[in-house]
Amino acid sequence: MAIITLTTDFGWKDPYVGAVKGAIYKELKEVTIVDISHDVTPFNIAEAAYIIQNAYHSFPEGTIHIIGVDAEHTPENIHIAVLLKGHYFICADNGVLALIMNKLRPEKLVEINIHDRITSNFTTLDAFVSTACHIARGGTLEVIGKPLSRIRAISGVQPKVSDSSNSIYGQVIYIDNYGNSVTNISEEIFDTVGKGRAFEISARNERFTKIFKQYSDIINFEDEEKKRDVDGKGLVIFNSAGYLEMATYKSNPLTVGSASSLFGLKINVPVIITFKDS
Amino acid sequence: MAIITLTTDFGWKDPYVGAVKGAIYKELKEVTIVDISHDVTPFNIAEAAYIIQNAYHSFPEGTIHIIGVDAEHTPENIHIAVLLKGHYFICADNGVLALIMNKLRPEKLVEINIHDRITSNFTTLDAFVSTACHIARGGTLEVIGKPLSRIRAISGVQPKVSDSSNSIYGQVIYIDNYGNSVTNISEEIFDTVGKGRAFEISARNERFTKIFKQYSDIINFEDEEKKRDVDGKGLVIFNSAGYLEMATYKSNPLTVGSASSLFGLKINVPVIITFKDS
Amino acid sequence: MAIITLTTDFGWKDPYVGAVKGAIYKELKEVTIVDISHDVTPFNIAEAAYIIQNAYHSFPEGTIHIIGVDAEHTPENIHIAVLLKGHYFICADNGVLALIMNKLRPEKLVEINIHDRITSNFTTLDAFVSTACHIARGGTLEVIGKPLSRIRAISGVQPKVSDSSNSIYGQVIYIDNYGNSVTNISEEIFDTVGKGRAFEISARNERFTKIFKQYSDIINFEDEEKKRDVDGKGLVIFNSAGYLEMATYKSNPLTVGSASSLFGLKINVPVIITFKDS
Repeated sequence: MAIITLTTDFGWKDPYVGAVKGAIYKELKEVTIVDISHDVTPFNIAEAAYIIQNAYHSFPEGTIHIIGVDAEHTPENIHIAVLLKGHYFICADNGVLALIMNKLRPEKLVEINIHDRITSNFTTLDAFVSTACHIARGGTLEVIGKPLSRIRAISGVQPKVSDSSNSIYGQVIYIDNYGNSVTNISEEIFDTVGKGRAFEISARNERFTKIFKQYSDIINFEDEEKKRDVDGKGLVIFNSAGYLEMATYKSNPLTVGSASSLFGLKINVPVIITFKDS
Repeated sequence: MAIITLTTDFGWKDPYVGAVKGAIYKELKEVTIVDISHDVTPFNIAEAAYIIQNAYHSFPEGTIHIIGVDAEHTPENIHIAVLLKGHYFICADNGVLALIMNKLRPEKLVEINIHDRITSNFTTLDAFVSTACHIARGGTLEVIGKPLSRIRAISGVQPKVSDSSNSIYGQVIYIDNYGNSVTNISEEIFDTVGKGRAFEISARNERFTKIFKQYSDIINFEDEEKKRDVDGKGLVIFNSAGYLEMATYKSNPLTVGSASSLFGLKINVPVIITFKDS
Repeated sequence: MAIITLTTDFGWKDPYVGAVKGAIYKELKEVTIVDISHDVTPFNIAEAAYIIQNAYHSFPEGTIHIIGVDAEHTPENIHIAVLLKGHYFICADNGVLALIMNKLRPEKLVEINIHDRITSNFTTLDAFVSTACHIARGGTLEVIGKPLSRIRAISGVQPKVSDSSNSIYGQVIYIDNYGNSVTNISEEIFDTVGKGRAFEISARNERFTKIFKQYSDIINFEDEEKKRDVDGKGLVIFNSAGYLEMATYKSNPLTVGSASSLFGLKINVPVIITFKDS
């Protein structure tokens, strides 16, 4: 049974998510539809990319991912379908796919050209739904689009490495549900540049020289329970998505506070890693 | 496989939505349950009607729609099941169905009378779940209810047309996830009254004389990209639901603002269309 | 087809819920995944317990419930799987299960010990997903865990009964979507201690001597409609979960207000029931 996932900025209240699901069920008797997120900040493709990028690979190969963010079809915002690492992505060519793909080469890439065959009133996502259902039925991309050689790139979201290779300049790109501040610095770039050297991570007034494997590594379990006061203490971890994340232990934005609120580590705040000479 | 949709004011946090789904799965091995919305403002049947009305028709015929808003069973709030345009609706007779049906005649309409056969503690929706599962198994409405000739009507939500047929008096009825202000003026009434005449739409301090086909029509794509400053500019469109909507381009209530926040076009604000003499 | 439910504090925006679902679909072709809630306050196991406790029993026996709250695997936070009243629960041994079970004895209880067999980067829930899929395929708990004789208990969440058996001292434990204040006083303890005697319920400035069967019992349907002014009036009910709940009629936290806002009946506020000598 085909799986179609949805990542949109539609929110959970409006009729749009239901309408898209209904349209899919109208075309396909047997299909599994999975919501990845509908809480993307309106028109924020960087956020959409972060979310889908960190969810898609856990799905089986062949899964079809619809990204309904900034998707209105215009001469400058064409619709594309892509086969990438065995997964299908359907979205507008607004930069979101460049963010997801990073340096990967797509197996297939087409501009969807079925818009004149569609008559409906939910214009934004009709072409996406038709394309997804076509793929779910085993159809090929070539039938619903024409090959495309390149997609729109977006600059400025990759961390920079200093000429000396002693520093990485990144920034906070996402605040998660716990108020943790996720950066654009991946474990891969950290390892490549750092080569095992000692380091200091600095972000506003915070300094860290250690990266934990899991949040609870901040606790010394040999201490008596009452002597372990770690609530609200900052720590750094590579999160499950493989990105450097600044967090607090048992973070709660509404009560004890979180990395983003306690330390002011909001979106776009610079994060610098300096490696020591070895 | 039968499809049952849910539109409620239960919210997404409480156990109620899960409990309803569990009860359906207990009765039916094979069923597809789709959340349309659980964020209806508590007891707000106008909002519930707007949401279900704009989602239901994208589902296949035969879909069963449960509306769990203001549904406590009382002598004055009976439970009804309706077959309308090939779709089943199960709700309380509190006016929500009149809003959905508008001028349509239901194919079938019954008062659900199975309450004394149900023993459970989730009283509000037990009768709805039993009714939905009965229909999903192919049962008829007559078995679980007695025919009803009329339902409760609600006044004041339809736009008014002036005696001269030169004006339509409507109002904002819904603010969507992007902060767009949706009115109760349908494309149908606009066309019928306007008959192609020039017009002016006025709402608070805003005046519009054009209705776009899509949001991006506000852009002149022949301008250089940097000369197109349309952010925060108001525009009018018939939305995918067929209602007149006042919007801003790439609206975001949290950052650049939206029609409802920038122009004060909140729920109940009057919207007047004046047609020019032809 | 196996049913797996999810109750977490992941929120609905982040990629985590999608990632967990993808991982389940990767292991199981045929499975029904049901979201119970992802809005548990971060790390709040009392809230998680309240939610799952009031949803799980409506599902068919054999359903597998994953509770992803405060679940990081540490020497002091082991992972457990339990068979209880025909339902499977998979969670960390952080007290949440003790809250759900109350005085029940589990049919089976094991410490999950498959962590060294798992290689993945979504550490928190990988073991839960693997365990759930193992059970869904018909596997036994003994294969993925070793028997455990006791779980971590949590004190202070049960109401207290006075020595004279004339009073029950409870508290507000949950505020629902309507702003109703749910207490930890069950209908069972009320009946056992009260034995049908007259009573007074007091919470801050509010006093109640009656418990309704449904919210609308506050209305006298023989009054003319316009004489029934019950909006905002307090009432007490045993909710669908069987707990004493203080509510207002047609409560709406955003407009007319609710029990928690109007009467200040927030989490932890004491609620005392005093029974009259019979």
